[in-house]
Amino acid sequence: MAMVILSDWLAAQLDKTSVEPAYRQLLQLMQQAILTGQLAPGTKLPSSRLLAGDLGIARNTVLHVYDQLGAEGYVLSTTGSGTYVADTRPDSAAVSPRPDAATRAVPGPSPRGDMSVRGQRLIDEAGVSARQWGAFMPGVPDVAEFPARTWSRLQSRLWKSVSPDLLTYAPGGGYRPLRRALSDYLRVARSVRCTPDQIIITTGIHQSIDLAVRLLADTGDRAWVEEPCYWGARSVLQASGIKLAPIPVDDEGLDPRELDLRHPPRIALVTPSHQYPLGMVMSLARRRTLLEYARQHKVWIIEDDYDSEFRYGSRPLASLQGLDDSGQVIYVGSLGKLLFPGLRVGYMVVPERLVGAFRTGVAELYREGQLMQQAVLAEFIMDGCLTTHVRRMRTLYGERRQLLIDAVTRHFGDALPVMGDEAGLHFVLGLPEHCDDRVVTAASYDAGVIVRPLASYYFGKRQRQGLLTGYACVPHEAIGPAFATLARVIETHAFGTRRTAGTVGTASTPRERVA
Amino acid sequence: MAMVILSDWLAAQLDKTSVEPAYRQLLQLMQQAILTGQLAPGTKLPSSRLLAGDLGIARNTVLHVYDQLGAEGYVLSTTGSGTYVADTRPDSAAVSPRPDAATRAVPGPSPRGDMSVRGQRLIDEAGVSARQWGAFMPGVPDVAEFPARTWSRLQSRLWKSVSPDLLTYAPGGGYRPLRRALSDYLRVARSVRCTPDQIIITTGIHQSIDLAVRLLADTGDRAWVEEPCYWGARSVLQASGIKLAPIPVDDEGLDPRELDLRHPPRIALVTPSHQYPLGMVMSLARRRTLLEYARQHKVWIIEDDYDSEFRYGSRPLASLQGLDDSGQVIYVGSLGKLLFPGLRVGYMVVPERLVGAFRTGVAELYREGQLMQQAVLAEFIMDGCLTTHVRRMRTLYGERRQLLIDAVTRHFGDALPVMGDEAGLHFVLGLPEHCDDRVVTAASYDAGVIVRPLASYYFGKRQRQGLLTGYACVPHEAIGPAFATLARVIETHAFGTRRTAGTVGTASTPRERVA
Repeated sequence: MAMVILSDWLAAQLDKTSVEPAYRQLLQLMQQAILTGQLAPGTKLPSSRLLAGDLGIARNTVLHVYDQLGAEGYVLSTTGSGTYVADTRPDSAAVSPRPDAATRAVPGPSPRGDMSVRGQRLIDEAGVSARQWGAFMPGVPDVAEFPARTWSRLQSRLWKSVSPDLLTYAPGGGYRPLRRALSDYLRVARSVRCTPDQIIITTGIHQSIDLAVRLLADTGDRAWVEEPCYWGARSVLQASGIKLAPIPVDDEGLDPRELDLRHPPRIALVTPSHQYPLGMVMSLARRRTLLEYARQHKVWIIEDDYDSEFRYGSRPLASLQGLDDSGQVIYVGSLGKLLFPGLRVGYMVVPERLVGAFRTGVAELYREGQLMQQAVLAEFIMDGCLTTHVRRMRTLYGERRQLLIDAVTRHFGDALPVMGDEAGLHFVLGLPEHCDDRVVTAASYDAGVIVRPLASYYFGKRQRQGLLTGYACVPHEAIGPAFATLARVIETHAFGTRRTAGTVGTASTPRERVA
Repeated sequence: MAMVILSDWLAAQLDKTSVEPAYRQLLQLMQQAILTGQLAPGTKLPSSRLLAGDLGIARNTVLHVYDQLGAEGYVLSTTGSGTYVADTRPDSAAVSPRPDAATRAVPGPSPRGDMSVRGQRLIDEAGVSARQWGAFMPGVPDVAEFPARTWSRLQSRLWKSVSPDLLTYAPGGGYRPLRRALSDYLRVARSVRCTPDQIIITTGIHQSIDLAVRLLADTGDRAWVEEPCYWGARSVLQASGIKLAPIPVDDEGLDPRELDLRHPPRIALVTPSHQYPLGMVMSLARRRTLLEYARQHKVWIIEDDYDSEFRYGSRPLASLQGLDDSGQVIYVGSLGKLLFPGLRVGYMVVPERLVGAFRTGVAELYREGQLMQQAVLAEFIMDGCLTTHVRRMRTLYGERRQLLIDAVTRHFGDALPVMGDEAGLHFVLGLPEHCDDRVVTAASYDAGVIVRPLASYYFGKRQRQGLLTGYACVPHEAIGPAFATLARVIETHAFGTRRTAGTVGTASTPRERVA
């Protein structure tokens, strides 16, 4: 493209009515012309004075564009002799190097798609839901009840005089006053035995498991997971190359078979206080056996204690960590279900001999920060707001749980069992064997009610059909109507359109019955 | 232990003057007695009335303790016949299963320590510093200049009327208004071409790289990394089982040798706008060659654009992503260096065909939240505060950079080269070949000044000695004194105690020279 043609082309392209400044337009046009080869390497550009005149724009604009083209390597300027288009064409020898004999001898990787094998599996098996709020989303607390005003007041006060230390990266382990507050809380509430030093603040259970697995297990190592278990934990383990060995659970919790016991895993991930998702408690005999097995075979136990503060009818049960004398347990928990999930604050309690490694590891892998939020949280806990809130929510969720159980019983009698309702934020509503819980879940979602199919939690063949049904985040008065919708969906899929034995009333008049 | 002995033992142990409530003391004592076998399985416990009388505490306390012991499986109660210690001894057959022939035939894993191989390597090679603030910490902005009051005002306003949606888990991708604000910002500031949908909010560069690597590469896949490069990125790649292929850089950036080119990697991680840590800009010809190579060989390019907003003397250079026509570039950036590192907000721009997978992946692997903070940030950007702050900091950091360069020149003449000072928050101060930058760093740390050795950034044999010296977070008036300290350390290690050629004045009177 000769100079005069360039000016004409640019003049035709420039849109002086656009909100895009002339500088940006001209820069992009010239870059495009050079990249596409319209302006060939070696072409001399018109002088800035000439081009500015031709285009009717300020000469300074053209000068800035030429400067930027020079800085980015599109053109070369030689003082006195003008500005030339640089040769920036890709080096074809570099793009397609001549393969050598050694390379030919080694079979290349098989052709792959965009994703990796593990990435594709992660996406294919993902359990995460598109909606995260509403009846009967399991595992989500009622964030509308969170004392946002108290939180905001503490936050405003701390932001009034900010120390630079709290705005930069966190030292490994997290904000010390928060670790101290948490160790006090965990000792009383969860019978966890630890010093503040043993606490590592993370962004939640996912990060805690991720860190433990990367520091303690290698690609190809095996992990026992409960069958069924939380899909998210499974995804995190698999994304780190861990092979999963699903171990059955019965009424006493984890129940390894003799064959399982003969092959000690590197890691055992368990939910002893409240099996997720089925809800049973691991018996003391099983706990002691597991701890002794772990000690003898050097198995790391990850105890995921995600929601056992909410136990209805009895005090919370002690953690497995509190029974551990040989330092084989990594205890992980989160404040998301106690306060609000978006908080993204979790913690892990690690044996003393691992403290140094975990502090370095968390800083090296994730570059933690969020110290201002940790400071707010520390004040919140030290002011007693955490225990007050948990106590209040325990009562509230207990009432909602009862309302929902009553609705189930009124509608289905004992045709559908309610499982694992002693603690937590959800229970499992059993479905008849012939009924596909995934199909019921999808139909329920379309009708506006969220549940989760038990199927998502099984790694191998699912052993029962059921729906994880969360009551915590549903206001009392919304439970009846939402359950009526769910009941209609279940009836259609589980019993055709027939009413079941125990049904009293009809699904179309639920409001009167529950309100 | 007979009943009477139990009462005596408990009476001796109970400390009525302790702040620990009698309930907790008694519960723990009885648990301990059962776990250690002092109270054997089958032993009948005294009635609550009797024990309460013997210990002189309320009967209700004993009842609560018995209830909790029952709930946790320590004791069994039979109505009418009393409370007995349960048999919770570990199942010895389960703890030490009889190995079978098949197991014996397979060689077991070699004995390992507490850590995994990858965990140990991560810790051994960790680059993270114990201190994160102070002269001359590289890569840290001046958080004391952050408009905390403006931020706090926006934050208080948003917390006044909190929507539950913003307190629960984030949908994959992050808060939509923030993604829109970022896409506008990146288009203008970094010539990134994207829609808001292509933006995935993360907690920073580490998480962005982690997600990309897990979704796009498998264990054993190779990644090109620049040599030298950021140690943190290397750690993240290795923790996901990626093999590193260090590629040399020269004045034009990444410079793969013919042998490198013959083995296309799965991923190429590059810092084209401002090579980290050396500071050069990748030339346009190299960019075009890399893009074409990536297109032909299906290489994913991760463009880490971590601080190129701070370019002194010319406008910021366009991103590599903006030149990419075939969707091979994953662009990653962070707001940590623009605002404050503790914020933990990063973003990635992914090609359209990967948007769905990345949204699912980020939610599945990390369960994101922090939407309230994202909302504050979106308002901050939309109000123009981000661009104002960046502009102000560019001027400030530019002045500090000049002060520090002047101090170097005054003290060392041209004996120590200053490299990569055109942009960013640090430059590299070259040291003589015989001088170990790790040793200088340690001595400087002891003297109260933080720098980082170039050695930490080399994967293979280091090719030069130098110190990453950050000026951004050091107030103008502190630069002189801190540099005087650093200069003394360098002199001792690099030149014995002799003064170097270009030295004017002495290291002990730096204040007068710089102030």
